[in-house]
Amino acid sequence: VGGLVARVLRFLDKAWALGVSEPKKVIHGFKVGIALSLVSLFYYVRPLYDVFGGNAMWAVMTVVVVFEYTVGATLSKSINRATGTFLAGSLGIGVHWVASQSGEKFEPIILGISVFLLASAATFSRFIPSVKARFDYGAMIFILTFSLVSVSGYRVDKLIGMAQQRLSTIAIGTSLCIFISMCISPIWAGDELHRLIHRNMEKLAESLEASVANYFKDNQSGYPSQEDNSKKTQAYKCVLNSKATEESMANFARWEPAHGPFNFRHPWKEYLKIGALLRECACCIETLSGCLNSEKQGMEHLKGYLKHASMAVCSHSCNVLRELSKSVKTTTKSSKLYLSVGEMKFALQELQNALKSLPTQLILEQVLASQANENKSTTKKECAPPVMEVIPLATLVSLLTEIVARIEEIVDG
Amino acid sequence: VGGLVARVLRFLDKAWALGVSEPKKVIHGFKVGIALSLVSLFYYVRPLYDVFGGNAMWAVMTVVVVFEYTVGATLSKSINRATGTFLAGSLGIGVHWVASQSGEKFEPIILGISVFLLASAATFSRFIPSVKARFDYGAMIFILTFSLVSVSGYRVDKLIGMAQQRLSTIAIGTSLCIFISMCISPIWAGDELHRLIHRNMEKLAESLEASVANYFKDNQSGYPSQEDNSKKTQAYKCVLNSKATEESMANFARWEPAHGPFNFRHPWKEYLKIGALLRECACCIETLSGCLNSEKQGMEHLKGYLKHASMAVCSHSCNVLRELSKSVKTTTKSSKLYLSVGEMKFALQELQNALKSLPTQLILEQVLASQANENKSTTKKECAPPVMEVIPLATLVSLLTEIVARIEEIVDG
Repeated sequence: VGGLVARVLRFLDKAWALGVSEPKKVIHGFKVGIALSLVSLFYYVRPLYDVFGGNAMWAVMTVVVVFEYTVGATLSKSINRATGTFLAGSLGIGVHWVASQSGEKFEPIILGISVFLLASAATFSRFIPSVKARFDYGAMIFILTFSLVSVSGYRVDKLIGMAQQRLSTIAIGTSLCIFISMCISPIWAGDELHRLIHRNMEKLAESLEASVANYFKDNQSGYPSQEDNSKKTQAYKCVLNSKATEESMANFARWEPAHGPFNFRHPWKEYLKIGALLRECACCIETLSGCLNSEKQGMEHLKGYLKHASMAVCSHSCNVLRELSKSVKTTTKSSKLYLSVGEMKFALQELQNALKSLPTQLILEQVLASQANENKSTTKKECAPPVMEVIPLATLVSLLTEIVARIEEIVDG
Repeated sequence: VGGLVARVLRFLDKAWALGVSEPKKVIHGFKVGIALSLVSLFYYVRPLYDVFGGNAMWAVMTVVVVFEYTVGATLSKSINRATGTFLAGSLGIGVHWVASQSGEKFEPIILGISVFLLASAATFSRFIPSVKARFDYGAMIFILTFSLVSVSGYRVDKLIGMAQQRLSTIAIGTSLCIFISMCISPIWAGDELHRLIHRNMEKLAESLEASVANYFKDNQSGYPSQEDNSKKTQAYKCVLNSKATEESMANFARWEPAHGPFNFRHPWKEYLKIGALLRECACCIETLSGCLNSEKQGMEHLKGYLKHASMAVCSHSCNVLRELSKSVKTTTKSSKLYLSVGEMKFALQELQNALKSLPTQLILEQVLASQANENKSTTKKECAPPVMEVIPLATLVSLLTEIVARIEEIVDG
């Protein structure tokens, strides 16, 4: 029992933390509560109940099923539900009429076959990517309504009355949902997408900075900052996994009316492109941090040569990312942005120069040393090791180059 | 009109292609059709209709909503639906009883407040990750049933009868779904996860091979193979985006009973770990192919030195991946696997040696040349360029090293 209590307490603790960190989700909960309480009024207010009767149930159902977190999702589900019900309802009534004309013997056969065929086709259509992305829910509602109508066994004239009531209760439910989700602290999918993109940029900057700093500082700094650092280094992982969220947000955002700084036909597809580029960049950072982690040992003196230049490239690219994030956030073009891109390129050039001059010098020293040795003794010394040690640094440089190139692409995109 | 027809034709064409490439999805469509036709029988068979009456609607609804692509998903939704309905129904009847005891004036107030509070709490709970992953649908059904029961306005004794009917129709619907999804060509989530993992391994091997081959061959081969190649090179992208699918499959697989080579408590979490490692590997490959693409120009003669060794590393790592895929596929330990890991390591060592000896020789040549020049004239020649040209190769080598290390991790995992 103690274990159960502990688990429940831990669960509540987690829920509380989530509520504190994202109060919007708590507000969404209350919004659903309000919508449901309002729709329950239909049952308590006599005249309304007399009109709709048992069909008022569908209003409650609609509210529960259709009310989603973002306005776009709510709109898309509402439209899907209304369209699906309407289409399936009319088709169902048509099939019913045909079946009832063809005699009592054939009626169940025709109805059964039509249910089988349409349900199979609609279920299969839900796997087609373009349908799945936008009309998945509508297809489900279509199947549901069609089978309910065709098996209901009522006369056609009664069915039409029922269909009207059903549609009007659904209309009431959906309009209530849309009204509440748009008027009480609305959560726009477009906004969320926007926020996701510029946060992801910041996260990339953070983890790029942290992983390079980690590589170069390691030995001087103490352990306590390590954990904090690794959390920052891992920030890119969120970026890597954000594809599904971005796509669904962009899908919902298309349904949304103009709001705030966003117009109709806001270029949501551009956001998806930027998102894809950001993920590529995150991929690079993950490889970089992997490479840096696995090659930590040795060559402290070599690291020293490039430390300054690499840190400069890193901090300049982070600047560009942050500038970019700011300019996305405010949806303005930043004049600073091009300046910092220039700085970034310059820093990269410097780093490449540093690398260029470094091993040649080292090898020359060693070659001269070995030549000197040859004069003294006949034992030959190997010249290879320094090159081997330069490889990780070369990797660092070329990965940084690649990251810079991808950031530039993002800037251009 | 012509445009519309063309679009419809294109849509049908796409649907047909999908059906041909994945016949399982067509079969799933037919399974849903069969389930719905069977459940419609309730309406046509008189004695059954007399027992359940209008409530038989809930059986149809259950089938439409609960029947999912995989057995695990169907089971999880069924259990969620039954549990949610049962909990909310009992709670609703309890609240109803309390409200009816407290007089006509307070009844609607108590009911309204309870709907508001419970709906808000349940909606919020759907955002908590652990609930969202496994009980999202159950929470929705809970809200739905509770509000329907508490607003229904019937007397409590009538409610209990209704609740019984509701539950039994849901039981009929869910058991029919589970029966059909398990008996007619079942699609197990565990199987799908298994297939996803070993296919991803093959895809990684394919794109690693293609991107390295692309880098080294480019100039000799003609254009026609280019497109085919780039398709293969892009194969890793599927791997990068497979996280969400893997997680949901693993979630569903947990609900599934023993089947085929899989037992209860099959280590689905291990699959997730392997999946994560594969994604890291895919990240590396994406960086590698990015680096190779951006550094295609020049240094053909340098490439020549390392071509043989790099191709060897690449083909051996592909061998390991394919061996691994085979051993996952058959769920047996392959004795060849360790052999090919050894070969891979050896090839990597050779490549590193090749790289080690390469630039030193080149530079030595040049140094000697420049010394010779110094003797002849006072114009100094630069020694730097070769090192700069070696960088991409060094990157290639260290990325390959990283990929090898990650493959080893996968082998150990």
